[in-house]
Amino acid sequence: MKKKKIIIVKLGGSAITAKDDSKPEVNAANLERLAGEIAEALKEDKFSLFIVHGAGPYGHVPAKKYELNSGLKSTKQVIGISDTHHSMEGLNYIVVTALRKEGLPAIALQPSAGGILKNGKLIKFPLDVIKKMLGMGLVPVSYGDVLIDEDKGISILSGDHLVPYLAEKLKADRVILVADVPGVFDKDPKKNPDAKIIKELGRKSVRQIREIGSAKGTDVTGGMKGKLDELLHLADMDIESEIISGFAPGDLERALLGVRGIGTIIKKDS
Amino acid sequence: MKKKKIIIVKLGGSAITAKDDSKPEVNAANLERLAGEIAEALKEDKFSLFIVHGAGPYGHVPAKKYELNSGLKSTKQVIGISDTHHSMEGLNYIVVTALRKEGLPAIALQPSAGGILKNGKLIKFPLDVIKKMLGMGLVPVSYGDVLIDEDKGISILSGDHLVPYLAEKLKADRVILVADVPGVFDKDPKKNPDAKIIKELGRKSVRQIREIGSAKGTDVTGGMKGKLDELLHLADMDIESEIISGFAPGDLERALLGVRGIGTIIKKDS
Repeated sequence: MKKKKIIIVKLGGSAITAKDDSKPEVNAANLERLAGEIAEALKEDKFSLFIVHGAGPYGHVPAKKYELNSGLKSTKQVIGISDTHHSMEGLNYIVVTALRKEGLPAIALQPSAGGILKNGKLIKFPLDVIKKMLGMGLVPVSYGDVLIDEDKGISILSGDHLVPYLAEKLKADRVILVADVPGVFDKDPKKNPDAKIIKELGRKSVRQIREIGSAKGTDVTGGMKGKLDELLHLADMDIESEIISGFAPGDLERALLGVRGIGTIIKKDS
Repeated sequence: MKKKKIIIVKLGGSAITAKDDSKPEVNAANLERLAGEIAEALKEDKFSLFIVHGAGPYGHVPAKKYELNSGLKSTKQVIGISDTHHSMEGLNYIVVTALRKEGLPAIALQPSAGGILKNGKLIKFPLDVIKKMLGMGLVPVSYGDVLIDEDKGISILSGDHLVPYLAEKLKADRVILVADVPGVFDKDPKKNPDAKIIKELGRKSVRQIREIGSAKGTDVTGGMKGKLDELLHLADMDIESEIISGFAPGDLERALLGVRGIGTIIKKDS
């Protein structure tokens, strides 16, 4: 039996939650549309799909309040671990429900139930379970979470760290990042109406952009630094990723069905 | 640092869900009372606690509909895996919320995210993560779930199988099973108003009861056969368990605080 392609989709927190950081709220209309596009694309039965979603205010607010990313330093943080995970699980339940409403056999995958970090980097994740789930056609839906950390006691696993980890370990064929921007711009689009989306990025071009930026005192990749560094690492292993907009109807479905170049592609030797 | 005692509590499905099998519904009043008793007992900070809850109609109905315990035989079951897990996760979210309302640092622990069965028996579970959670004072809350099975593709992990597995692996000091009966009766209490709770059970006494029962054509341990067999296995390893009522106010709190003999104790050499 020929192995199906594996696609990993990251639904950015900014694409599925409301922007107001003061209260956790879902962007239900956008989430439902994205779920519909995923279901449409999966109908052609061409690939296995793993979904990771971001946190938005659901995770960032309690994680910041209890300084969970600094490690376990006080017993006062323990209730914060419970708060943060419970909040993220609430969001995950809503995302899985939205996907199931479209008929998808979606299944939650709680990172903190089996994953372990070491100084913030994943060193253990239930890949055996995930491979079996993908093999039988389930759509696992995972997320950023607070995990046991071998060095720090606890630490935050961000969706942006989980996605490339899974892409590498599962030998994914494609990684699609659904963001609130249509890709990486060549200039700050807020200040430059003529800013354009960079079609392809790699280590070389990112270095050039950063050099230009540092001469000008700005870095257009700055806001995406963590994300880009992870994706460049993935590109080193020849796994291509693409950042697309979560607000342009049809873009996710087209990307899932194989259209490349809708947003910014991050690949080797660019 | 002295290692705290570890107690494992099973909140039976019959104690926290409504009895009507046709619709999944929580017995909110009873769940809240039990959560309150757990919180009270934990205030004395004498033990670490792991909670497992049963399924009631939340798990049994979809699992039966899709015959998940017979293994993966058809692609039609895949949506049933999603249905069953999502339903159980919904119940788990309610249970964790009830515990958190009492101030407990409760945290969900999804069995299917890391556990693996082999012909229905657990062969893998994230014990490393669980030990760290217990060590920092978190209260993990796990449940019956549908898991990857190495032989059968998928299979059901029941709470009654998970509890003794964890008790053995975590070297638990005490196991408390909260049921809808106050223990194991010596006669069928529905037919015999003078039926009494058996105070202690072990392999020897269970054998005697079953011999008497088979002579009379009845077995008073019949309804609890699977549960008792697992608990007797635990008793062989010198881990004592006790079945108590989930409907007698105060019983769970007292049991957690060390009172023995409220219900039926299952122990070695009885």
